[in-house]
Amino acid sequence: MDDRIKRQLEFSLEIDKVKNIFRQTHLSGGGRQENDAEHSWHMAVMAYLLKEYANEQVDIAKVMIMCLIHDIIEIDAGDTYAYDEDALSTQKEREDAAKERIFSILPQDQKKELIALFDEFEAYESPEAKFAHALDNLQPLLLNDSNNGGDWREHCVTSTQIYKRHNKTKQGSEKLFEISDQIIRNNIKKGNLKEE
Amino acid sequence: MDDRIKRQLEFSLEIDKVKNIFRQTHLSGGGRQENDAEHSWHMAVMAYLLKEYANEQVDIAKVMIMCLIHDIIEIDAGDTYAYDEDALSTQKEREDAAKERIFSILPQDQKKELIALFDEFEAYESPEAKFAHALDNLQPLLLNDSNNGGDWREHCVTSTQIYKRHNKTKQGSEKLFEISDQIIRNNIKKGNLKEE
Repeated sequence: MDDRIKRQLEFSLEIDKVKNIFRQTHLSGGGRQENDAEHSWHMAVMAYLLKEYANEQVDIAKVMIMCLIHDIIEIDAGDTYAYDEDALSTQKEREDAAKERIFSILPQDQKKELIALFDEFEAYESPEAKFAHALDNLQPLLLNDSNNGGDWREHCVTSTQIYKRHNKTKQGSEKLFEISDQIIRNNIKKGNLKEE
Repeated sequence: MDDRIKRQLEFSLEIDKVKNIFRQTHLSGGGRQENDAEHSWHMAVMAYLLKEYANEQVDIAKVMIMCLIHDIIEIDAGDTYAYDEDALSTQKEREDAAKERIFSILPQDQKKELIALFDEFEAYESPEAKFAHALDNLQPLLLNDSNNGGDWREHCVTSTQIYKRHNKTKQGSEKLFEISDQIIRNNIKKGNLKEE
């Protein structure tokens, strides 16, 4: 087996670990917590289905691969809950080290390509990154709404916190923000999100 | 909320159930069984990484969305193990009914689009379908190999059965078949696959 494909297969096996990184969000029906592989799969399918709502024209292959790999670094860095301020303060350092180790398994050209995609996602600037982030926000919102806001209630999430996150959805999709806003207002009304 | 986006979000929530459809394959490390969402995520990432080995030029966005949705119908039809002959005999009927119910949640144009993608995958004819199938074969092979063939030993899978499935990998990628063949031979040697 040549070195190139050996590295590609080693990386393919390494990322299997993403299936054991669990998020705070629970599956619809309130069962167990969702893992990063499931979340990424769900985001990528939704990106494809909802691409007509992107503010700007997007390269959908690029959006999908961004969605699929954006959480791979959590194999080392762990999941950082969007509303955990302490964990958020050390997130960058943990994620940089993870990024270097994990993507270095790949052949050099693919290491560069995937890190570029990952960094583009994080930078929140390109149409594809902004749209992928809109899905990263909408997907757990949809699950949590279906569970009567269980995850928000457990973590005492406030309307200010959730709007801080979801306001950025606007940058990727005005329409998906409009929908998110409806869902958020509905959950404030039901007492699932505390109003500040 | 207008009817179109309502249907798109309803479908997005419906497919969450794929995360509870478990396959025979175990995660690397031999822990729990893998579910369809995880498998589809893994296939799509591998498709992107290994696209240079497709026999024919492929539209990678199409390959990825095929990978991501190819098991959605198992929400109703259940997972059919590749080496379970009884289940295979009723697979088509179960899957046709599932396909109609699940994709009908979508707006009409997207129902048509996704069914066409699903059918194209099943037909095994286009370059994208053939390459997606190569990944559908390689991904569990990789996991099972890493687990010392645990799933094959549990189900008494034979070399004839596994070659029947993996020979088709050739249609999508000569190179990925060559690699699969090496892995299979190695597992026959180790006694993980019974030789007939």
